[in-house]
Amino acid sequence: MGEEKENAQERVVDISLKDLSKKLEEFARVRDWEKYHSPRNLLLAMVGEVGELSEIFQWRGEVDKGLPNWEESEKEHLGEELSDVLLYLIRLSDICGIDLGDAASRKLVKNAIKYPPPPPKVL
Amino acid sequence: MGEEKENAQERVVDISLKDLSKKLEEFARVRDWEKYHSPRNLLLAMVGEVGELSEIFQWRGEVDKGLPNWEESEKEHLGEELSDVLLYLIRLSDICGIDLGDAASRKLVKNAIKYPPPPPKVL
Amino acid sequence: MGEEKENAQERVVDISLKDLSKKLEEFARVRDWEKYHSPRNLLLAMVGEVGELSEIFQWRGEVDKGLPNWEESEKEHLGEELSDVLLYLIRLSDICGIDLGDAASRKLVKNAIKYPPPPPKVL
Amino acid sequence: MGEEKENAQERVVDISLKDLSKKLEEFARVRDWEKYHSPRNLLLAMVGEVGELSEIFQWRGEVDKGLPNWEESEKEHLGEELSDVLLYLIRLSDICGIDLGDAASRKLVKNAIKYPPPPPKVL
Repeated sequence: MGEEKENAQERVVDISLKDLSKKLEEFARVRDWEKYHSPRNLLLAMVGEVGELSEIFQWRGEVDKGLPNWEESEKEHLGEELSDVLLYLIRLSDICGIDLGDAASRKLVKNAIKYPPPPPKVL
Repeated sequence: MGEEKENAQERVVDISLKDLSKKLEEFARVRDWEKYHSPRNLLLAMVGEVGELSEIFQWRGEVDKGLPNWEESEKEHLGEELSDVLLYLIRLSDICGIDLGDAASRKLVKNAIKYPPPPPKVL
Repeated sequence: MGEEKENAQERVVDISLKDLSKKLEEFARVRDWEKYHSPRNLLLAMVGEVGELSEIFQWRGEVDKGLPNWEESEKEHLGEELSDVLLYLIRLSDICGIDLGDAASRKLVKNAIKYPPPPPKVL
Repeated sequence: MGEEKENAQERVVDISLKDLSKKLEEFARVRDWEKYHSPRNLLLAMVGEVGELSEIFQWRGEVDKGLPNWEESEKEHLGEELSDVLLYLIRLSDICGIDLGDAASRKLVKNAIKYPPPPPKVL
């Protein structure tokens, strides 16, 4: 039973791009915000969020992986700004009629062909 | 059986953030690129991709939802640039130790509280 | 005498990149902020300001030249964000040892060669 | 006469924002490009250039002041990308009817009030 609960928990967190997409669509619809969601409006909103994300990193010099010396509140803030970029990116894709998950999967394949892995090292 | 296949197909396309995250980790690992993936390197790479995305929209004036008059090749290009932003965003989150799917889910809840939906209209 | 005064006024406003550069250097020096002014710190700070600039335009749809329907306070705000981008751009150039005015002059010449003006129309 | 020549040389390099502004206006006019220069088109074009600027810095880790180990061709490239951001920024300001030099001068004064210099240290 404990395992089941853990799995359920896992599934909630392992959210798909389509799940987020549906939530964003509903969010805009019930607030009558669809009229603001044109491609270039959403793109500029995303650039605004990329700016807020950059501000978090701007005066820190190089930052180590895993953010070892960051306060919990700073990580929380970072998670919010990363999310804001993601949410506008998904919404922009939807409004443009682009399936972002599909496009990203195909881009990964394309990248793997463009940058083939090195051959295994043999003695 | 046909239904099963359809579900399998659906599942492939309905990709989760964690699926992409794992693929990106593997991609970097086999190419020995992990050493380049510091937080600020990835952030600047993402800003670079946001620039390429913006270039697609820069001289068009306002763009209609669904991109009605765009060539198929232009939509393909757009899908690639949207993907590049997404892939660096996911990788940046991972390298920072932030669970992006979890953060985005919580941000949606926070946004819903910050901007409550209007009350239903009653005659 | 009135003319002289007008010229003096004009000269104050017709500020050079080097004038701004010197003021920024002095600004950082007296505050002991030079230690924060590394190239990538300044670049990320500039990206942050580009984000704030984008936020001003994000929900407006297409905007007409001259901003005919904007409030005076909105134009004031816009001037500040444009300035913030400029000031970080100049400072970034200086810290990198790039003469921005010289580089921009040469880029204009290069652009004029790359995009030659059309021949004059003759009857 | 040598001095005069030197001054002339100096003046060419110590270019003002208004000088660049006039050159850009002429550049667009003779190519009949004014129709493309709407505020949001120019803003997105500038974001595109900020992306190209970021790409130069993306995989380098921290970069030292003065770019001590950069090739001359890399510095040349950097100067061009910094210039592209500047040129679109100036053009965007002009098209919005904002005097960028004036705005930047006033922003510097405002910043000096917001962040007063520390008092001189006395024994």
